[in-house]
Amino acid sequence: MRRELYTEDHEEYRQTVREFLAREVVPHYRRWEEERGMDRGVLAAARRQGVAGLEVPEEYGGAGVKDYRYRMVVCEEVARVHATTFTVTLGLQDDLVLNYLLDLTTEEQKRRWLPGFAGGDVIGALAMTEPGTGSDLQGMRTSARRDGDSWLLNGQKTFISSGITADLVIVAARTDPEAGSRGYSLFVVEDGMPGFTRGRQLDKLGLHGQDTAELFFEDVRVPQANLLGAEGQGLRYLMSHLARERLGIIAQSMTGARAVYELTRDYCFQREAFGRRIGDFQATRFALAEMETELDIAQAYTDRCVLAHNAGELTPVDAAKGKWWISELQKRVVDQCLQLHGGYGYMLEYPVARAFADTRIQTIYGGTTEIMKEIIGRDLAARS
Amino acid sequence: MRRELYTEDHEEYRQTVREFLAREVVPHYRRWEEERGMDRGVLAAARRQGVAGLEVPEEYGGAGVKDYRYRMVVCEEVARVHATTFTVTLGLQDDLVLNYLLDLTTEEQKRRWLPGFAGGDVIGALAMTEPGTGSDLQGMRTSARRDGDSWLLNGQKTFISSGITADLVIVAARTDPEAGSRGYSLFVVEDGMPGFTRGRQLDKLGLHGQDTAELFFEDVRVPQANLLGAEGQGLRYLMSHLARERLGIIAQSMTGARAVYELTRDYCFQREAFGRRIGDFQATRFALAEMETELDIAQAYTDRCVLAHNAGELTPVDAAKGKWWISELQKRVVDQCLQLHGGYGYMLEYPVARAFADTRIQTIYGGTTEIMKEIIGRDLAARS
Amino acid sequence: MRRELYTEDHEEYRQTVREFLAREVVPHYRRWEEERGMDRGVLAAARRQGVAGLEVPEEYGGAGVKDYRYRMVVCEEVARVHATTFTVTLGLQDDLVLNYLLDLTTEEQKRRWLPGFAGGDVIGALAMTEPGTGSDLQGMRTSARRDGDSWLLNGQKTFISSGITADLVIVAARTDPEAGSRGYSLFVVEDGMPGFTRGRQLDKLGLHGQDTAELFFEDVRVPQANLLGAEGQGLRYLMSHLARERLGIIAQSMTGARAVYELTRDYCFQREAFGRRIGDFQATRFALAEMETELDIAQAYTDRCVLAHNAGELTPVDAAKGKWWISELQKRVVDQCLQLHGGYGYMLEYPVARAFADTRIQTIYGGTTEIMKEIIGRDLAARS
Amino acid sequence: MRRELYTEDHEEYRQTVREFLAREVVPHYRRWEEERGMDRGVLAAARRQGVAGLEVPEEYGGAGVKDYRYRMVVCEEVARVHATTFTVTLGLQDDLVLNYLLDLTTEEQKRRWLPGFAGGDVIGALAMTEPGTGSDLQGMRTSARRDGDSWLLNGQKTFISSGITADLVIVAARTDPEAGSRGYSLFVVEDGMPGFTRGRQLDKLGLHGQDTAELFFEDVRVPQANLLGAEGQGLRYLMSHLARERLGIIAQSMTGARAVYELTRDYCFQREAFGRRIGDFQATRFALAEMETELDIAQAYTDRCVLAHNAGELTPVDAAKGKWWISELQKRVVDQCLQLHGGYGYMLEYPVARAFADTRIQTIYGGTTEIMKEIIGRDLAARS
Repeated sequence: MRRELYTEDHEEYRQTVREFLAREVVPHYRRWEEERGMDRGVLAAARRQGVAGLEVPEEYGGAGVKDYRYRMVVCEEVARVHATTFTVTLGLQDDLVLNYLLDLTTEEQKRRWLPGFAGGDVIGALAMTEPGTGSDLQGMRTSARRDGDSWLLNGQKTFISSGITADLVIVAARTDPEAGSRGYSLFVVEDGMPGFTRGRQLDKLGLHGQDTAELFFEDVRVPQANLLGAEGQGLRYLMSHLARERLGIIAQSMTGARAVYELTRDYCFQREAFGRRIGDFQATRFALAEMETELDIAQAYTDRCVLAHNAGELTPVDAAKGKWWISELQKRVVDQCLQLHGGYGYMLEYPVARAFADTRIQTIYGGTTEIMKEIIGRDLAARS
Repeated sequence: MRRELYTEDHEEYRQTVREFLAREVVPHYRRWEEERGMDRGVLAAARRQGVAGLEVPEEYGGAGVKDYRYRMVVCEEVARVHATTFTVTLGLQDDLVLNYLLDLTTEEQKRRWLPGFAGGDVIGALAMTEPGTGSDLQGMRTSARRDGDSWLLNGQKTFISSGITADLVIVAARTDPEAGSRGYSLFVVEDGMPGFTRGRQLDKLGLHGQDTAELFFEDVRVPQANLLGAEGQGLRYLMSHLARERLGIIAQSMTGARAVYELTRDYCFQREAFGRRIGDFQATRFALAEMETELDIAQAYTDRCVLAHNAGELTPVDAAKGKWWISELQKRVVDQCLQLHGGYGYMLEYPVARAFADTRIQTIYGGTTEIMKEIIGRDLAARS
Repeated sequence: MRRELYTEDHEEYRQTVREFLAREVVPHYRRWEEERGMDRGVLAAARRQGVAGLEVPEEYGGAGVKDYRYRMVVCEEVARVHATTFTVTLGLQDDLVLNYLLDLTTEEQKRRWLPGFAGGDVIGALAMTEPGTGSDLQGMRTSARRDGDSWLLNGQKTFISSGITADLVIVAARTDPEAGSRGYSLFVVEDGMPGFTRGRQLDKLGLHGQDTAELFFEDVRVPQANLLGAEGQGLRYLMSHLARERLGIIAQSMTGARAVYELTRDYCFQREAFGRRIGDFQATRFALAEMETELDIAQAYTDRCVLAHNAGELTPVDAAKGKWWISELQKRVVDQCLQLHGGYGYMLEYPVARAFADTRIQTIYGGTTEIMKEIIGRDLAARS
Repeated sequence: MRRELYTEDHEEYRQTVREFLAREVVPHYRRWEEERGMDRGVLAAARRQGVAGLEVPEEYGGAGVKDYRYRMVVCEEVARVHATTFTVTLGLQDDLVLNYLLDLTTEEQKRRWLPGFAGGDVIGALAMTEPGTGSDLQGMRTSARRDGDSWLLNGQKTFISSGITADLVIVAARTDPEAGSRGYSLFVVEDGMPGFTRGRQLDKLGLHGQDTAELFFEDVRVPQANLLGAEGQGLRYLMSHLARERLGIIAQSMTGARAVYELTRDYCFQREAFGRRIGDFQATRFALAEMETELDIAQAYTDRCVLAHNAGELTPVDAAKGKWWISELQKRVVDQCLQLHGGYGYMLEYPVARAFADTRIQTIYGGTTEIMKEIIGRDLAARS
């Protein structure tokens, strides 16, 4: 069905993104995976080109464009070149870290931090999860206690994307054990602060171009000026950014699934077996038809989410619906596509094999499928 | 997510429909099922109220409203009272028969037939399928050969909805065995034409309020004035009406599935077992969350189809995608909802039990799921 | 794979069963469904032929054969003629009622009741479920209190198979509200006891040849001689017969699914569409191959369960595994087979349409799929 | 359910295997994966211990034990320590290469080759697949033409397990292009034969401890004494060994799936979230119950296959049923288990993450799931 999401401006932007990727990402991508990390400069380049950081207001060096459709264009184009790690990295910066900073910072903090996200190579990270807590935020044990004009932060975080390379890390910590859900706050911990150390780079199944790590905080002295938003509001801030985080994963899953489907469809009509194109076997044709149908149906929902987000109306529950369903769709699609490749699908030189390993985390991070169902289920229980 | 499909006019119309159903349908519906047929007057009443036949132009007694959103409102409201047979009957008249007549008739034919669909109790039927051919239209054996100023029609049709009660039947027949796909034409056979007989009412699994029958044609003399459209264009006409037919089934499946889901959700939060509301068990909550998610995602696609149809842009392939996926979704949802009712779900006094039997045909008629996948698959093979 | 379950004796027995069915069941079966009940004589005839009641000891008129393989033969042969109601009725008598009587009766009770199950037309029923309790046995409210040499029984049961026609009903009731799980007992209530009344025959989705009803007990005076087993042991008795009950449903589902599959397979290789046998389309061939595979795999487990039961080793948990998985398999198989029949699958003259309605209860009665998973899950939690 | 497959001898053998693995495999396994290859000596050690090569007759240095239950014990124990590559390597040697050699060799060939499989470190490989042919054996282009007392072999093979390290490779080649299915023969190509070269080690998604490669044959002169079996019978030999090959994959998938399930079950009852053991959430308990059920049901079929193979009765079609279903089960189980691990499941230090990558090939090699369904479907079409 003809999509009605984009205007001509978005399509022009698409050209910019496409050229940027061809020049700055595609030639280096496999090497980044082998080296277990991207060239640092690529992020700054992306920001300078407007491929990332578009939302930073003009006064801090950005374009001040809050239209999520531009993010969708980026996701689509990065998916088309199967650079999954790159899309995940951009998502972390733009859908998570930058978003927190845009919403929660004081004027002084904006001046300090935002320019780095507009044209610089600053890498941000978000540190919520702790060993053994998973999605159970209230179980967190990292704590910060006031000490004069600053805070002393102690604790440990895990599964932190870009944890090794991050220059600034938004850390959630308990600031008042008596205050229940109002006892958590967010802090910006910066590289070099004494007591802030990083564990080894975790060895992941996929997403090899991105580092993931444990972080340790031992009496890290965080100045009051690095408190993000109001004291005690940490959990509320986390909650209020969930819709955007989930939308980011919807965008990645949707575009990633479609890109893998499209290359597989082409593969099936190029390759022959038993004297016919693979795609001419009915079972293959049905498999392709099923995937295309589900992708088109998911697309309709995705595009609605984008517009709802632009209108400030995307609820965490509606985003949760899209998050679990579309990430599970991506899992099914990638798995089916690998199968259609036969033995080639198991070889890492084929993008489908890498996608299989890279994308398996989609149904887990940002809240597992099970957590999403729990959220949706509680919401409808509450309404009943 | 907030739907943006409707305007205030549609919501007002909804009230009309709702009142009509409460008055004319709900009190009689179970009796119609037991008697294996609806009271004939209900269709005329529906048309007089504008609940059906809305598209008939004003000069023939209708409202001339071509906006499919009004049909959606009707489907939603009929589904809400679980009158599946009634929705299927309206769909047959408005999405199929009337649509052929609106598109293919001459001015003279319009004057003869359309008023009956605006305020009358005329029942139309569409006779394509033959014993042993299923979805294989080109295998049809019913034939019509010219004899002076009329045609002699011979053959047999089966699975004809409203076949027993129809006043006029659109019959597809082969008119030129040598002309390949251009050798089929459509005729309107009217009640009482000599040689036109009807077999017994078929005993169906569900949809007991509607008759289904075999039709027999033995040297039925059909006047040239009852030829629909141009000679030899029958297959083309069938093809060009497929998107609308499929949209009709999408509308029924979407609204039917949601209505059964909603009553089941309410049931789960009213009924208790083991000292808790059923809906408070995690497995139930997950089942409900899964259904609600898939319904919302399907809804986004459905609403897009409705607007695309209004804009004259809904392709048969896009409609095929929605037809199979949403009718299969309905099947899953109804089955799951029956299961959540436990033993009560097997008792016909519960709407979910009737829905289970009534809706099982949705993945079969109007082209089976398999035929839909074949159509989509061939389309993508052709594009590759 | 060659099955090794049967000996020559079983195959000879199969002939007897087959002849009995051809003579006594097949010619009448559709009429029984229309009349909503079987001819009463057929049960007595079955018992006289050894098709039912085989386990009754010789001293009470039976054959005293405890080998469950004979029951499997009966299930297979009844399934072959698609007489689902008949198999369910035999299962109720032989796998449930008779089994309780064999295990729990005194010598005096045996003399009173068993002969009727050997060659007579006695119909037994089992009344556990109550309105609103479902599988939650401990929530039952039917009670019996001692009054001199007898008990006064009060309460209500629902969904009781053969409830209308039963001559004797095993009723579970609370006999000591203080005694927790040891406060339940079983009683045999006989037709004609004052205060014992039956509600209307429930209108079910399928299984139309069998009556299902609510039962009411109002100060029914049950003599002590009709207490089944020991006072206070009711729940324990119910638990200890679960494996056998589940095995009975495994047997029905396994044989029913295979019979519907086999007729569908034959149908697919007889019927043509688009110039080919349906079965020659790859998608159909795959669908058949998938069903045959799953049936063969389920068969291996079923046969193991039969032998384990014969050896007295079938645990309730292992039976629960087979119960849910094989009844769900049956549901999938019947649904898929109906789909492969196209429009014919929706017509009740085709056995697959009746099977669709008849078998939908399999995943519900005898403990729903969800209850089975709960049982298995708790068992492994307990072992962990 | 109590398994009846094993005798005491098998359980004693299990101890031997277990000790061998603890000593020779477990301490080195992760290193082998990192180094992309096992220590060569481990295969010789396994053979000396009777962990591999058990079928070699005593006169050639083996134990002459043809009972497949010993292979099952090996598979179970290797799975228990999650050494997937090792089980795949043993399978290649014992279920494939050695089996061809045992069945098709002359006395002279036996003396030459079998001792290496009894106590030596000989690595064999099987080279059927060619670039672009997949499962389509008749499309192979590798050819051998007679030249005096030897053959000149030309062509290319791909996806050859142990292709880099193999000492002898069984190569299928076309020997008579006119002879249809009787125009293929098998040859043993040995390391060092001029013209036999190996491509680079293919970079696979998983199974990193085993090399996989392309092989090239350019005018390789293969002596007549290295022809395996009769000239022209190659395809027949490949067909007749399919059942055993598929049984090998059934054994790997069955045992691999169960081992991953068991560690996940234990994980779920050790780890806590939201103040409870993960396994105490109903959705988790259900997921575990579903897996345990399907594993038990698959086990019943697997054990039947083992006994049928021992009796010489396992048909290629019955093995195909088990191959696709149990390898697909393994895929589902491993995927679900990874999900239950949450973020930890994505970390390679957890066996479940490695299993996810290692086992994805199971539904592809040895004939894809689709090929298996085609085989089963054709068989039932032929029987209909």
